[in-house]
Amino acid sequence: MILTVTLNTALDITYRVPALIPHSSHRVGEVRERPGGKGLNVARVLAALGHESVVTGFVGGPVGSVLRELLAPLAPHDALVPIAGTTRRTIAVVDGTSGDTTQLNEPGPTVTADEWAAFLSSYDALLRDAEAVALCGSLPPGVHVGAYAELVRQARAAGVPVLLDTSGEPLRRGIAARPDLVKPNADELAQLTGSREPLRAARDARRRGAHTVVASLGADGVLAATPDGIWQASPPAPVKGNPTGAGDSSVAGLLSGLVDALPWPDRLARAVALSAATVLAPAAGEFDPGAYEELLPRIAVTERAAAA
Amino acid sequence: MILTVTLNTALDITYRVPALIPHSSHRVGEVRERPGGKGLNVARVLAALGHESVVTGFVGGPVGSVLRELLAPLAPHDALVPIAGTTRRTIAVVDGTSGDTTQLNEPGPTVTADEWAAFLSSYDALLRDAEAVALCGSLPPGVHVGAYAELVRQARAAGVPVLLDTSGEPLRRGIAARPDLVKPNADELAQLTGSREPLRAARDARRRGAHTVVASLGADGVLAATPDGIWQASPPAPVKGNPTGAGDSSVAGLLSGLVDALPWPDRLARAVALSAATVLAPAAGEFDPGAYEELLPRIAVTERAAAA
Repeated sequence: MILTVTLNTALDITYRVPALIPHSSHRVGEVRERPGGKGLNVARVLAALGHESVVTGFVGGPVGSVLRELLAPLAPHDALVPIAGTTRRTIAVVDGTSGDTTQLNEPGPTVTADEWAAFLSSYDALLRDAEAVALCGSLPPGVHVGAYAELVRQARAAGVPVLLDTSGEPLRRGIAARPDLVKPNADELAQLTGSREPLRAARDARRRGAHTVVASLGADGVLAATPDGIWQASPPAPVKGNPTGAGDSSVAGLLSGLVDALPWPDRLARAVALSAATVLAPAAGEFDPGAYEELLPRIAVTERAAAA
Repeated sequence: MILTVTLNTALDITYRVPALIPHSSHRVGEVRERPGGKGLNVARVLAALGHESVVTGFVGGPVGSVLRELLAPLAPHDALVPIAGTTRRTIAVVDGTSGDTTQLNEPGPTVTADEWAAFLSSYDALLRDAEAVALCGSLPPGVHVGAYAELVRQARAAGVPVLLDTSGEPLRRGIAARPDLVKPNADELAQLTGSREPLRAARDARRRGAHTVVASLGADGVLAATPDGIWQASPPAPVKGNPTGAGDSSVAGLLSGLVDALPWPDRLARAVALSAATVLAPAAGEFDPGAYEELLPRIAVTERAAAA
């Protein structure tokens, strides 16, 4: 199975309103709820690709109970660790006319030292059956900034390939623990390395400890700096739609390609096709399987000169 | 005891953000939750004034469980009727700099015919011990538009004075059932009667069936058209602050004055002082007891000529 870790899970709530007007009152026409957090999204895409997936992280309180109820009928297996605090909500307010979204994200519950210790022990047990593990998203309050570095080291000690998808100081520290793969976007990479030139920044991130860096270039696809060479993968044409969850689908594509032992160009094609098929899907955070099948053979993957 | 009915209870959630910017992402700094809906607010103010208060209406699902947990340690007694649907949330997004609020209100659960029947039977039992009853707020989906008229008739049959605080068609139908008191604001009164002239509109509302009409005039206080005469009550000076809950405090003042058998001028002074003390309170929906005591003797109540 493939394990995904979401330390700051969320109940994702979507409100549809005619238009969001600050400092006025709105009747919400439609309310939707889904289990959220990056690792949960990754696990759902992995399951849709035919992989057995397991989600872990923290869950608690009445919002956490709703999240678990909504997760139960879905394919990913729930190995979330209960905590005393209450799982956060995220609210996406979608304007009915334009489709534009305004996002409100709660900070998340404070995790205690005992809860973190319980998670580490559960994580260790889960790693025994894992073919790969993805560490996804922000850290909740109370979890130390070196948490991802600790989880990367634990995965490496267990011989499980580990992908890290986070930002800021947790990314900086996590990279130093030598993860197999990081998948920053241009902003995260610039924050880490100080460079806005993707190739230079990706190489810098490799020097900091990441074995492979797959930099997301938005509509232009991805740039991968790997031990075997440098590739760029791009969709045949820019896709228009809702980019929510496109990065998570890309992570699922990379993990899936890793577990299937695909060569790098095929892994990258899978990641870019899934990402584009997510932008094209009508519901945020899901991918369109037909679009994926249609796009996959049309992703252009080119090898770039390795000279620095 | 005084009974308050809130058919569409809510979990009131307040988010504090630096500023709400449509179509961007916000990290919420502070999350607060309180049991909400007009009748619950009225009951809390009644309890603070020393009255025993009981709340009824519908509650259900995980959001309803949180509402009941938050209500349990408060003074009003919980006589809410459980339903299969989930209690709605309201989200107030407060800009940290300006204090301006953007409101997002979920529609509420659909109430079934069986649940409505269960409520009617519980309401009937509660009326036996009630000195007065307030019917507050909007109707949830599934409840028929004549619901308040039905509840007014039931209260009158039980000999319990009944105050109706709603709007639109439920107000129009409810008034025809001859409630003791309605408390519309200028917009609700204009919608009901077609007139924006408060005295004319209040008299029209009395002709439609309300024994007494207390029209809220915002910062100018209230205008009361009663069987005993017409009065206007105003605060000594306009008050500045958050008007959330001011109308509910005014309802509590009117009910409290009714149960205490105060003459009309004293009832109106109590309602206006409570309303102003709510605008002045730092937390939305609560009143400042010191400001209330200080304002009460300074409310100007004048009798107006009764000639039509």
